[in-house]
Amino acid sequence: MLSFENDYSEGAHPKLLQALSDTNFVQQVGYGEDEYSLRAKEKIRAALGDPEADIFFLVGGTQSNQVVLDGLLHGTEGVIAAETGHVNVHEAGAIEYTGHKVLTLPAHEGRIDAGELKAYLRDFYADPTYPHMVYPGGVYISHPTEYGTLYTRKELEEMHKVCREYDIPLFLDGARLGYGLMSGETDLTLPDIAALCDAFYIGGTKVGALCGEAVVFPRHGAPKRFITHIKQHGAMVAKGRLIGVQFDALFTDGLYFDISRHAVDMAKKLKQGFEQRGYRFFIDSPTNQQFVIVSNRKLARLESSVRYSFWQKYDAESSVVRFATSWATKPENVDRLMALLDET
Amino acid sequence: MLSFENDYSEGAHPKLLQALSDTNFVQQVGYGEDEYSLRAKEKIRAALGDPEADIFFLVGGTQSNQVVLDGLLHGTEGVIAAETGHVNVHEAGAIEYTGHKVLTLPAHEGRIDAGELKAYLRDFYADPTYPHMVYPGGVYISHPTEYGTLYTRKELEEMHKVCREYDIPLFLDGARLGYGLMSGETDLTLPDIAALCDAFYIGGTKVGALCGEAVVFPRHGAPKRFITHIKQHGAMVAKGRLIGVQFDALFTDGLYFDISRHAVDMAKKLKQGFEQRGYRFFIDSPTNQQFVIVSNRKLARLESSVRYSFWQKYDAESSVVRFATSWATKPENVDRLMALLDET
Amino acid sequence: MLSFENDYSEGAHPKLLQALSDTNFVQQVGYGEDEYSLRAKEKIRAALGDPEADIFFLVGGTQSNQVVLDGLLHGTEGVIAAETGHVNVHEAGAIEYTGHKVLTLPAHEGRIDAGELKAYLRDFYADPTYPHMVYPGGVYISHPTEYGTLYTRKELEEMHKVCREYDIPLFLDGARLGYGLMSGETDLTLPDIAALCDAFYIGGTKVGALCGEAVVFPRHGAPKRFITHIKQHGAMVAKGRLIGVQFDALFTDGLYFDISRHAVDMAKKLKQGFEQRGYRFFIDSPTNQQFVIVSNRKLARLESSVRYSFWQKYDAESSVVRFATSWATKPENVDRLMALLDET
Amino acid sequence: MLSFENDYSEGAHPKLLQALSDTNFVQQVGYGEDEYSLRAKEKIRAALGDPEADIFFLVGGTQSNQVVLDGLLHGTEGVIAAETGHVNVHEAGAIEYTGHKVLTLPAHEGRIDAGELKAYLRDFYADPTYPHMVYPGGVYISHPTEYGTLYTRKELEEMHKVCREYDIPLFLDGARLGYGLMSGETDLTLPDIAALCDAFYIGGTKVGALCGEAVVFPRHGAPKRFITHIKQHGAMVAKGRLIGVQFDALFTDGLYFDISRHAVDMAKKLKQGFEQRGYRFFIDSPTNQQFVIVSNRKLARLESSVRYSFWQKYDAESSVVRFATSWATKPENVDRLMALLDET
Repeated sequence: MLSFENDYSEGAHPKLLQALSDTNFVQQVGYGEDEYSLRAKEKIRAALGDPEADIFFLVGGTQSNQVVLDGLLHGTEGVIAAETGHVNVHEAGAIEYTGHKVLTLPAHEGRIDAGELKAYLRDFYADPTYPHMVYPGGVYISHPTEYGTLYTRKELEEMHKVCREYDIPLFLDGARLGYGLMSGETDLTLPDIAALCDAFYIGGTKVGALCGEAVVFPRHGAPKRFITHIKQHGAMVAKGRLIGVQFDALFTDGLYFDISRHAVDMAKKLKQGFEQRGYRFFIDSPTNQQFVIVSNRKLARLESSVRYSFWQKYDAESSVVRFATSWATKPENVDRLMALLDET
Repeated sequence: MLSFENDYSEGAHPKLLQALSDTNFVQQVGYGEDEYSLRAKEKIRAALGDPEADIFFLVGGTQSNQVVLDGLLHGTEGVIAAETGHVNVHEAGAIEYTGHKVLTLPAHEGRIDAGELKAYLRDFYADPTYPHMVYPGGVYISHPTEYGTLYTRKELEEMHKVCREYDIPLFLDGARLGYGLMSGETDLTLPDIAALCDAFYIGGTKVGALCGEAVVFPRHGAPKRFITHIKQHGAMVAKGRLIGVQFDALFTDGLYFDISRHAVDMAKKLKQGFEQRGYRFFIDSPTNQQFVIVSNRKLARLESSVRYSFWQKYDAESSVVRFATSWATKPENVDRLMALLDET
Repeated sequence: MLSFENDYSEGAHPKLLQALSDTNFVQQVGYGEDEYSLRAKEKIRAALGDPEADIFFLVGGTQSNQVVLDGLLHGTEGVIAAETGHVNVHEAGAIEYTGHKVLTLPAHEGRIDAGELKAYLRDFYADPTYPHMVYPGGVYISHPTEYGTLYTRKELEEMHKVCREYDIPLFLDGARLGYGLMSGETDLTLPDIAALCDAFYIGGTKVGALCGEAVVFPRHGAPKRFITHIKQHGAMVAKGRLIGVQFDALFTDGLYFDISRHAVDMAKKLKQGFEQRGYRFFIDSPTNQQFVIVSNRKLARLESSVRYSFWQKYDAESSVVRFATSWATKPENVDRLMALLDET
Repeated sequence: MLSFENDYSEGAHPKLLQALSDTNFVQQVGYGEDEYSLRAKEKIRAALGDPEADIFFLVGGTQSNQVVLDGLLHGTEGVIAAETGHVNVHEAGAIEYTGHKVLTLPAHEGRIDAGELKAYLRDFYADPTYPHMVYPGGVYISHPTEYGTLYTRKELEEMHKVCREYDIPLFLDGARLGYGLMSGETDLTLPDIAALCDAFYIGGTKVGALCGEAVVFPRHGAPKRFITHIKQHGAMVAKGRLIGVQFDALFTDGLYFDISRHAVDMAKKLKQGFEQRGYRFFIDSPTNQQFVIVSNRKLARLESSVRYSFWQKYDAESSVVRFATSWATKPENVDRLMALLDET
């Protein structure tokens, strides 16, 4: 069975496994204070161009969203997100579990619009009953979005400006950040993101690691007692080295960026293959997720040999399905997929 | 620097690393539905003698305590625990964060007493104001306890009986379960624990794995929608294979038990070494944690060459310190420790 | 200053004050076990035609919504409500504070549609990723709605049917229930509501009482340990008699219904007055809230003599404003309002 | 049936009922912005000698403890309280429901000791593992305590000093504050309390009101957005006038203090009566709660004619029972109680 179902179908990049093996018997202190974690943080700070960034390693994406947002928001505050945002849809209410409402804005291929954000904030404070309402206390965006799309630097700058105007933090979910940074169609760099966001994370789970996200609060911006906050949320890893070693390897010699570029290249190859065969796309995604419109008849024939993600119904006869590439995607597997498309 | 500071100073047992490497490129579905996780669960069920056990893999101990207890308890309920219980002391309020009070009983070298438990429950319902109080909705014990001590089978049976009488679940924190099961001084087996508890976990993080705890609800006893509950608590691992592969290896050919026995053997060796040198013990622990009374003068001399855990002040001139062995402890390191004791 | 700002601008109906005065020195036990509360509950059960209804007196509307929904919903569940529902907009996140998401449906003049509800539920379970999403665990409706509109019996029956099909409770916010029941344009009776809903409350605060809502769970349907749950949410009143005495009076000789009818009559009078003067209505409300389109110029002139609620902008030159009548509205005050409209 | 069961067995002082009646039809805005509430706050500020005190009216004691503490504490913090403190025992876990642990100190007849408090705080920060523990973020005391006892001014000053040293707020539960202030054996005044505490409340429910507590944050010390916080906790009263009018009356012409003194006088009379009859007291209480040791035989005989609170078993043959007086206690009822003691 060939799988393009998601970007976490394999284990880890071999260099990460090797690093885990190489360091395995060196005794280290726990809870993220090990030397590998410290070293990884230094390398990430260098890549960000922010020597004062506070960095914490958490296990996964939903956990990072939950722990970071509950750390950033006051009790009376909710977070603004796109209707299609992961925090609003696919986290089983992890944000609400911590007591915060997700306040939604319309999604434009997964993105929110800075103008609509500003209008929301302006209207909120214009309503005299606002003290009886949930305060908008932060903004959540994903980059790439759940639809594989990206914000431009200009868009992020505008968002940043609105957040500054209303003095609320801008938080970027970077579960797939590498695939965004290495897209051929972006003008946003990692230092840009560090400069424009108040919090974000560099995803590891979907970009070559067994697990792990590097949560960044630029400019010493970590919420008060964030270590205790992490522990209280059940998110502290005893053997912090597990994630530290992996991020150390990812940020050595540009590995994180190289493997991300590979995934984007594979997505392009896949995209071209579909295009050559006359398929249309639901969204024009410049990253590793491709949303293709496929007839249900064809899908039925592919079912036994290829895994993909069903996204949504397109029309009576066809569906939108997602094919995801990753750091681990082999070109020959894209070829096999194309062959299957031709054969079935 | 030699470390006996804890049982999570090294990475993972090499067989686990090997298994991660061997399976690395086999594509798998996420969220714990991969074939390695399924296989590991079958092996654990066999070891438990409970083919109907519900099993879930979580990342760490505090997370497991939090997620399990919040799943077992009704909103009006708290959990009974020893005053010294991990959930009461060292989890940064992770239980209270989920809305549940920790109701404490006196600790007897880390253990609670079934008679005192019964008296607590009887007195609770004898007080006419009890509807204005937190209901005791479950019992938390650790085995081995935070003091390295163990419950006997008889003690666990009595506890089980009291819990049945009051219809509340008995939950056993088995973060160090292997070291308890392989102690020479226990009559409790893994099937006994499965038979007598309503929930427990088999610790991986402290017993040879990079991370991971196998949470068990015997007899199909998982709380309603536990998968969604895990997700909501930010505790779902996308690459569930990470933990599944490790537990698969741990429960192949008795590895979990063998490496646990090794740690206990090393603890015995260490204990004998201290005894031969005239040291006294704060507690007589039959497992991998040894609590030794050491003069502060000696500790000051050891400081630069050995890491241990400070436990508490003993008297004006000496302290209780913990030396922990693990699956990874080398006999020559115990010898080095003894040499250091003699030299300094 | 004349006020039509809301339906809680005055104190209590004089008969309630008299009853408080008459019973003032009779010693009673606390926490709702007093004889007045017990008697009031019996009278309400008679009015409901449900001798087995569980009834609890809480202080206010947001509190009732919060305490009831947190009692009805499982941890993994949210509540479905209209986008305009009070729980979604004007309770400062009281529902999310208890860990539950508000899942929104389109509002049709404040109402939700049974067909859209059914589609929502069907689509939820049709999405294979639903275990990673918030389960729809209950339905919240308000009657009258925040827009003064009402459900018909047929609509409520359809809603009830959908809820039965998916086995989720239907909860009706009756903060203004009296004004709905006494509308000339309803075919829903109090026994109908008791038969078709799993929980609801009979509003006192807005219908003649100083404070208090009678929360009803028909057919012995109260959530487990609801008394303790109330206490834990800080919602238990020590002198339960305060609310018990008032509801006893409200449900003696049909007072609740009589004063509600009066408010509806006053609303009709007010509506006719506006109509005669050529005003248009934003919504055709058959209850005590009237939403009138008024030019901003006129509003500026009324400002110093009349209080009303600004609802929303209508167009560049006019606004939607709400005029609310109540049990306490005097006909001469409606006349005065009309005179002011003519004069200014 | 004669009741000394508690201090909330009757309704309200007649002057409060009269004030409710007198103001009943004056239209007011809601949510505590009515003129009676504003006036009452001014009168309270005058009584406190703190023109800058932030004051909020809540409904009851548990609610006030919950809402205030959740407003004062950071997410990582718990509150220190006596083991016997109301928040630790009789609030059904209302504090833990909001995510905060109650950290207990030994109770000395209901009081905590400033020296033990200081030692607790010092030891907490001396333990190197403290970031994995619940931070002590505030101190809760009750005055009078649950045992009717009082702090001296010196004790409160010491407590205040420790709190300043560790920069944590001191919160005083004054559900029965009047009875403490009017005790013949106190040197603490209301301005003292305002000067030494960071938050406290002046109890109305147990001191002459139908309901209501005046929560005070001296020196503009209210937590951020406290109005929204109150609303979110379901604790906002729509007709705020209900409590405002009552506190306005209570703080007019010293009524609060006069009726409190009456209760203390009645307690003295009751105490002397018991003493003259040879009864012993469990605690020497200078306020309105008296804890008498009574033989079970005598209690059995009293049962049909007097209500009191069972407190605890004293020995095989006798119990500690509480007799509470209040603003409403009639001297002739104390005489009747004495007669019953003599007769039965």
